[in-house]
Amino acid sequence: MTIGLTTPQNLLAIDGIRLGVAAAGIRYPDRDDLLLVEMAEGSQCAAVFTKNAFCAAPVIVCREHLAKTSPWFLIINSGNANAGLGEAGLLASKQSCSAVAELMGCDAEAVLPFSTGVIGETFPTQTLIDGLSAAKEALLADNWLPAAEAIMTTDTIAKGVSELVEIDGKNITITGIAKGSGMIRPDMATLLAYIATDANISSELLDLALRAAVDDSFNRITVDGDTSTNDACVLIATGKAGNNQITDVNSTQSDTFFAAVARVAKHLSESIIRDAEGVTKLITIIVEQGKDQAECDAVAFTVAHSPLVKTAFFAGDPNWGRILAAVGRAGVVALDVDKIDIYLGDVCIVHQGGRDPGYTEESGQAVMQQEMITVKICLARGEAVTSVQTSDLSYDYVRINAEYRS
Amino acid sequence: MTIGLTTPQNLLAIDGIRLGVAAAGIRYPDRDDLLLVEMAEGSQCAAVFTKNAFCAAPVIVCREHLAKTSPWFLIINSGNANAGLGEAGLLASKQSCSAVAELMGCDAEAVLPFSTGVIGETFPTQTLIDGLSAAKEALLADNWLPAAEAIMTTDTIAKGVSELVEIDGKNITITGIAKGSGMIRPDMATLLAYIATDANISSELLDLALRAAVDDSFNRITVDGDTSTNDACVLIATGKAGNNQITDVNSTQSDTFFAAVARVAKHLSESIIRDAEGVTKLITIIVEQGKDQAECDAVAFTVAHSPLVKTAFFAGDPNWGRILAAVGRAGVVALDVDKIDIYLGDVCIVHQGGRDPGYTEESGQAVMQQEMITVKICLARGEAVTSVQTSDLSYDYVRINAEYRS
Repeated sequence: MTIGLTTPQNLLAIDGIRLGVAAAGIRYPDRDDLLLVEMAEGSQCAAVFTKNAFCAAPVIVCREHLAKTSPWFLIINSGNANAGLGEAGLLASKQSCSAVAELMGCDAEAVLPFSTGVIGETFPTQTLIDGLSAAKEALLADNWLPAAEAIMTTDTIAKGVSELVEIDGKNITITGIAKGSGMIRPDMATLLAYIATDANISSELLDLALRAAVDDSFNRITVDGDTSTNDACVLIATGKAGNNQITDVNSTQSDTFFAAVARVAKHLSESIIRDAEGVTKLITIIVEQGKDQAECDAVAFTVAHSPLVKTAFFAGDPNWGRILAAVGRAGVVALDVDKIDIYLGDVCIVHQGGRDPGYTEESGQAVMQQEMITVKICLARGEAVTSVQTSDLSYDYVRINAEYRS
Repeated sequence: MTIGLTTPQNLLAIDGIRLGVAAAGIRYPDRDDLLLVEMAEGSQCAAVFTKNAFCAAPVIVCREHLAKTSPWFLIINSGNANAGLGEAGLLASKQSCSAVAELMGCDAEAVLPFSTGVIGETFPTQTLIDGLSAAKEALLADNWLPAAEAIMTTDTIAKGVSELVEIDGKNITITGIAKGSGMIRPDMATLLAYIATDANISSELLDLALRAAVDDSFNRITVDGDTSTNDACVLIATGKAGNNQITDVNSTQSDTFFAAVARVAKHLSESIIRDAEGVTKLITIIVEQGKDQAECDAVAFTVAHSPLVKTAFFAGDPNWGRILAAVGRAGVVALDVDKIDIYLGDVCIVHQGGRDPGYTEESGQAVMQQEMITVKICLARGEAVTSVQTSDLSYDYVRINAEYRS
């Protein structure tokens, strides 16, 4: 199931971006699994990648290519992550880029490769290459939904959103797509997310806008604590909207643009949790009154990763003792547990470190029946705040991950 | 299910220790849930407790009482953890101790209280007190198995073991019992474990022996990463065996005793994993060639806690990419992934950071079909080694923890 998600309608084309999909047969029969993205000349491209030490071959190649030249094409496949394959994986990724370069008439370094799927299985390079012509033939500006569908793995629904803002009297469009359902605990990036805009903006500001947006969205979600080897998030600006180039981070124009990109990223990251593997509940964990962001994050992610907390949410059981135990093991130095308050929705369950005198099982149960639940933890130590979104741990999470390769 | 566990037979009595159980009705109908342990005068007692900041009321009271005097009695209940109840919990724990003191004729400070069960539910102090007389009437030296059964919660089988060693020509007996099945990620202690011996040993060495044993046993297991609020491990020495007091940590006598206590603790901690909630596989994760113990532990526990690794083991699927991804996110500084080897049983699956050329899916599958599986991760950075035991993540783990309070 998903929590309140429907297939995205009205994904808006971005002037300067064309997308083509194909069913290359990399892993899944009878579905698109290959996406070619073309960027108009003069486009800017910012990207962030996984911090997993075992990063996948395409992540390494992306970093190399970005250091050399501006990208013209993205080539993205689902079904095989091209991770854990050593030199063979790097070769596969580079050959894929070369094949795109030959077909489209550009340098191999102007192609960025991305892969998602099973880790450690031999990469079917020739199968990918054989699918490229069909993807090229399919190139269209109005192809964002097929693109979102082509990059899915255990996702049950495509994820995407568009935003329209006005800057200098010009209409600016931002469209983003993302995939991801399990192995989700992004660290400076997410699984695969692609956001494009026709805004005219300097590359420095584009990079800042991406990092700010990712930090408040993809870096604030977790399904299972398992940071992927392939996480990548890309923000492209074609500059076709005709606004004066945004170059001042303190301008209204910059504020408008940053906020719009942040909304797109937040929508996409929340969509990933709403379609998390086996999800039955969308849980938002707010930690406030911390000394700093780091300790708020430590508490929020410890609660979000606790299998006992996650199964209690699955059961709809207000077993708040599990939340309290998770807070207690989060490693916060000199935590005074006698000052902590915890709320489940609007219901105070823990007051000053113990069961709130006014708490009733019925009031907790009522909150737990909802599909979207907020847990608020007040540390009474300072002013810092964080917010993390996660899913529950259900039979279906186990089924999906026990069956994934079979 | 459990992995190769049977009800412990032949738990040997310890001269100077009597145990009495009763069905007080704290939570479970028709089963023993209360255990009174009496120690002969002159007994030494060492104890370690959870590091969870939200430690339970009995843990706080134990620490207070141990600082004041030598314990004569332990009072242990299952069904209610007496955690998260603030002042009311402390009062309940102290009243329980006072009731034992009055019944047995000692100071309240000579009683150590322990609780295990649901967190955050009102503690039924009077119910516990009403059960004390029956527990007193039942006091017997040969009562270790009923004692092990009385402290169970989601455990499906009692856990205990005895060791016999000779020191100075005297027979020394060590008997230990433990409980625990979920919320298992002990930190300097375990859920509840009680080990007793008739050895004559100084209190300093007894404490050292306990800490050494715990560090290599209970601190090296995890079911779900959830450190409990109530973890406690106690080692009692009655001195009745008549050996010359062991006071020199560098003596043969000390070596013999330390090794025997370590074997008992290891047996008990492994029993906990063999009866972990929903367990179908016993997984031993060895990390070697690390720079230090800390980074070996970080890698071992990251792999052990990964829901994706755990579900792959449940499925019997040699999805080693998930192990590799977990190693990569363990936070080891400047990890050179191109040097890492990973073995599944005797099968090399990853060689120098990539899929081993000789690896076949069949050889991995064969290992995964076994009930007991060893994963060995070689970091190629130094000489440090660690070993951690864990269980898989099954439908039953979710069922047990979704149903626990209903």
